[in-house]
Parts: sequence; structure tokens; C-alpha cells
Amino acid sequence: MDKQDRYASAGVDYDVLDRVKRLALAEAGRTGGLLSRLGMSEIPESRGETAYVVDAGDHYIATVLECLGTKSLVADAMRPHLGRSSYDRIAQDAVAAIVNDLVAVGATPLVVHAYFAVGASEWFADEERASDLVRGWARACLEAGASWGGGESPALGGIIRTDAIDLAGSAVGIVRPKSRLVTSDKLREGDAIVLLASTGIHTNGLSLARKLAAELPDGYLTPMEDGRYFGDALLDPAPLYSRVVEGAQQAGLEIHYMVHITGHGWRKLMRAPQDLTYLLEEVPTVPPVLEFICREGRIPEAEAYALFNMGAGFAIFLPPAQADELVRLASQQGVDALVAGRVIEGPRRVVIQPKGIEYSAEDLRIR
Amino acid sequence: MDKQDRYASAGVDYDVLDRVKRLALAEAGRTGGLLSRLGMSEIPESRGETAYVVDAGDHYIATVLECLGTKSLVADAMRPHLGRSSYDRIAQDAVAAIVNDLVAVGATPLVVHAYFAVGASEWFADEERASDLVRGWARACLEAGASWGGGESPALGGIIRTDAIDLAGSAVGIVRPKSRLVTSDKLREGDAIVLLASTGIHTNGLSLARKLAAELPDGYLTPMEDGRYFGDALLDPAPLYSRVVEGAQQAGLEIHYMVHITGHGWRKLMRAPQDLTYLLEEVPTVPPVLEFICREGRIPEAEAYALFNMGAGFAIFLPPAQADELVRLASQQGVDALVAGRVIEGPRRVVIQPKGIEYSAEDLRIR
Repeated sequence: MDKQDRYASAGVDYDVLDRVKRLALAEAGRTGGLLSRLGMSEIPESRGETAYVVDAGDHYIATVLECLGTKSLVADAMRPHLGRSSYDRIAQDAVAAIVNDLVAVGATPLVVHAYFAVGASEWFADEERASDLVRGWARACLEAGASWGGGESPALGGIIRTDAIDLAGSAVGIVRPKSRLVTSDKLREGDAIVLLASTGIHTNGLSLARKLAAELPDGYLTPMEDGRYFGDALLDPAPLYSRVVEGAQQAGLEIHYMVHITGHGWRKLMRAPQDLTYLLEEVPTVPPVLEFICREGRIPEAEAYALFNMGAGFAIFLPPAQADELVRLASQQGVDALVAGRVIEGPRRVVIQPKGIEYSAEDLRIR
Repeated sequence: MDKQDRYASAGVDYDVLDRVKRLALAEAGRTGGLLSRLGMSEIPESRGETAYVVDAGDHYIATVLECLGTKSLVADAMRPHLGRSSYDRIAQDAVAAIVNDLVAVGATPLVVHAYFAVGASEWFADEERASDLVRGWARACLEAGASWGGGESPALGGIIRTDAIDLAGSAVGIVRPKSRLVTSDKLREGDAIVLLASTGIHTNGLSLARKLAAELPDGYLTPMEDGRYFGDALLDPAPLYSRVVEGAQQAGLEIHYMVHITGHGWRKLMRAPQDLTYLLEEVPTVPPVLEFICREGRIPEAEAYALFNMGAGFAIFLPPAQADELVRLASQQGVDALVAGRVIEGPRRVVIQPKGIEYSAEDLRIR
């Protein structure tokens, strides 16, 4: 497929990755029954969602593991030009990737663990960079309301390139009261689609952005329209949407479904398995860095919305009468939100009306 | 210090790593109070233990994140000679590293997540290797009694070397009844020290083993005394001690403390902060692969016990009257165990009597 090709040429072959994911899902599926000896059970619908959910009696436990991706390479390349390591920014981005996945099932973050795997322990001898990373991670945990429980910082010579770092982490959250649990089965025709603004590329599409930088004469130092370096804008961290979700839950809003918009871009809006059509009647402003990538990379809009967040980092589906209240609550948390569309009867597809773009179920094969 | 030097020369500088760990512990310590908004609290003593523990009311929640280290490089090197990928074995090893850390605080494993980060998605196109990895991971989860909840398999070109994989994972467990919680404060003078047998090098000391292989004329293909290749024996996976711990808990044994013996070898036996002396009057049989490394690498015994598990992968401290029963229960689970010594009054140190070895508190700076 055309829209997969571009990713494949940037070193991310989603077909192969999706195949191993399906094998892993099948094998992992055989293990869920083990919980019964503890009087617990898994929520089968949560397999393949962003977080795995276990019924623990009077509450649910949600767990997730996520990674930053390759954004650290941009921070490394930009450091001499920015005069800062930016590891505080990418630490927040990593925590956001983890926590935004966790809250998408309705969980409140409890504990985050960090994985800082390096090619050689000398990585940590650079005290400014190491300190930015550690302090940025802690600050993001504080903002997400999660306790930073621990983690690992192994030196993996021969696996990780010298002077590179593989940033990842895990989190556990609690869903209490149990009515806060969000899986696809609450989603229904008529629900409003509220999109929460993104701040840039987040952690999705970095391989493509790096490929573009390699093709530009000035690379990461190419100025964008707003005067900022391309490489600097790539490092803007994602928001922690957890605060918006927690605020909406506390306000008693009936959240029917949530989607953390990452890999597969807006195609992820049809993540729920049922036959429903997602009609977007408005689109949010595209962050300058994504506009830049699309223009310089000559990426057609139909492909751009299939790959990037295009201004929408998180989607919340809820009864239309509550949509404006959600927008207000998000704004209180400093997050712009937009009532962008609604769920209507029809085949499983995403229709971006203002752009004349449509994605069918076959365009999203993540289950 | 001499015994640190050898590690440092193999690319693992524990001084630098310990420094960033201390910074991370300090920063992470500022986040624990966030749990109070959920009516929960952290167990402060669990910071710096193998798993982080949260008081969730009528039970505790324990969380951990761990990695395999560099053993996958041995599997890759041995594959042409063994005619098998061995990724089923190292998958078990990774799950054991995670789960054995988790159970050391008295937790029962609930959910494990997998992190399979590769240099290029083509890694997964090798179906035998990918399938061994996935199936081995699932089998180890089944044996540990944990549900495999999910995970990530990112392609991180530019960070991870092409054709290499960074294997890690996270787990969450439950401590219920709460009396099962094991932190250092139950440990006391008079406790018996029961050592559970290791099956080889486990995931600790691989950098050193790889360095030795590089120095040997036949490398990993050097035959050991029992006729096996050195590289083959390195791939023997660690046992899942979770079954022994769960058996001991169910039998009502009063476990006072547990230590997963990994980095820092037997020095870890004095992990608890209080002033107590750990007197080992017997030592278990050393696995052939560790004997081989010590002999070929000319590693003095005092250094070997400070670095490797030397036949003891896990230590359980409990009242002496219950020690034989624990040995019997372990044997039922196929794990050899040995009542190796006792906790006595004295300064914080480890005394390995049959070897004339002594480690003082200054030899272990992991908190």
C-alpha cells in the first residue's frame, strides 16, 4: 500500500511489525486465565487496546509499556545548536507516551517505571544530559500524578549504539470506581468526537522526520515559517492528557471511548472494532512542524492524516450534550479542544469531510 | 576498587551507573506523595528494593521493570553452531529476571509486559527467531503464573544496532494478604539463609563473559569440561523462583527477607540496610559455566563471589525451624535449595566461611 510504503522506506515496516504483534497477541491470549487463581480475570476487550486491564474485584488494574522511539537522536543532533540537551523535553515526551496510553482506558496513573538503556555507561557521565533526563522524567510524573517507582539503566554495549539511549517505561493505573472503565463497547452512534490539541509531532513519525532532515540541505537547522529550527520544533514534548481525562471523570462526564492518536495517525479513530463511521466535520490547526514536514516532504494530505496526529493528539468520544463541557475542562488544563465531529451509522471508516479524505477498515490492521 | 575494575573494563562502569541511580532515587522520591489523592501511599523502604510497593488498602501493589542485558548477542553468535535461535531460552531468562525481582518483595505475579526493541523491523521477518521469542516469552509467563498483558516492539534505527534486539519488560504483582509483604524490616539475627540453586550465569555478568569469549582462541565454541560449548551453556535460562516463593507462602512459612542474586553477586546478600552479619557456612555447587569463566578468566574467588551468582540465584531468609521445610518445597518445584548459613549479630558484612571471603558494607553501594 502506498501509505505504508513511505514508512517502510524510513525503516519502519508496519506489515512485519503487525505480523509479530498478531502472533504475540495469540500467544499472550493463552496466559490470561492464570489470573483466576487469584480471584481475578482479564478484560478480553483490553487486549489490543492501549492498556491491558485486569478485574481486581472492586477496581480494575491497568498496565502499559511504551517507548519514546527515536526522538533522542534529534535531541543529540540539536544539542550543539540549541546549547541545551533537551533531554528534559524528551523525558516528558516518553512519560506522555506511556501515561496517555494508560488513561485511554479510563485509568488513573499510579506508578511509572523508567527504562534508560544506553550503549555505554559513559552516557550518564555527561551530568547535564543525565540530570536533564532524570529531572524531566520526575517533573512529568509529578504532572501526571504518578509516582516514579523505579526502573533500570543498563549499559548494553553491542546492542545499543555508543552514545545512544533507548528510552522507554511502564506504568500501572487503577480504574475506580469501575464505571470509569473505557473499552470500545460503550461507543455508540451519535457520540461527539472531541479532539485534544497536539503540540507537535509527539513520538509518532520520527523516522520519517529524520529521513526528511537527511534530505534537506540544512537538515534540522532548516528554519520553519515561524523562524524556529525544524529540529527544535520536533523536540516539543507531548501534553499529558491525563489531567484532562482525570478532570472529565471527576466532573462526571460519561466518557464512551478514548483514542491516543499515535502510530497510524487519524486511522486510529476507528480503533473500536464495531461498524461505525467517524465523521469529522472540523479539523484542528496543524502544528507548524507537521505542516513543514508535509510541505517539504511533499506528503499528500490523505497520507499525512493517515500517519501523523495533524493537530489532534487524543480523541474523546462522549454524549454530544457533554462535549462543550469537556472543551471547557480541557481549556482549564491548558489544552485546546475541539468538538470536531460525530459517530454515525455506517461501515467502519473515518471521513475527514473538510479534506475530502476517507479511510476504510482495511486501512487499519492493528488487531 | 579492584573488583569494580574488571566490570568497568568490560563496558559496565557501576560507579557511573550507581551515581545516576542515586540521582534518580532522589528525584523519584519527590513523587511518592502523589498517591495520597487516591487514598494510597508508597512503602518508602521499597525504594531501592527490587520492586516498588504501594499500599492499596487491603492489599499491596508491587511493580518492576527489568531487562535481559546483552545475552541476545550470545544467542546470535551461537545460532549457526547450535542450529537453533535460542530466543526461547533468553525469553525465559528475561521473564525470570523480571518476575524474580517482583516476587522478592512477597508479591504474586499478575501481569507481565514485553519490550522487544530492534534496530530494524526486519528482525521480526526471521520467523523462526521471532516465533521462538514470542512462544518462549508466553511459556515463561505461564510458568510464572503471570498474564502476558502486552508490550511494544519498536524499530529504533540509529539507536539499536541493525540485527540486534533490546529485550526488557515490566510486571505488576499483588501482595495479599498484606502480611506477605517482605521488606528488610522483618529480617533478624538468627534467621536461616536458604540459597536456591542457579542454573548458570543467568542475566548477570554477560559483559564479562563476552569479553572472555573474545579472548579465547575458540571463543564461544571452546568446550567446557562437560563437553558443552561455553556459548551454549551461557544460554541456559534462569529458573522462575516465583513458584518456590508462592509455594512457601501457601505453606505458611514466615519469610523474613528475600534477595534476588544478580548484579554485585553475593554482596547482595547484605542488601538490607541494618547492621547484621551474613555467615555462610556452606556454599552450593558452582554451575560449570561459572567455574569455566573463573578458571579461564583467572578470576580470584573473592572477586567471583562478588560478581556472579556462583550457584545461588535467590536467597530466602526465614526462621531456622522452617528452613528444611522450605528446602523440601523448593525440591518439589524442581529447584535445589541449601540451608547455607545464618544471620548473626555483627557489622553489616557477608562472610563466606568455606572460602575465607568477607565483604564489608563499603563493598556494596547500591542504595
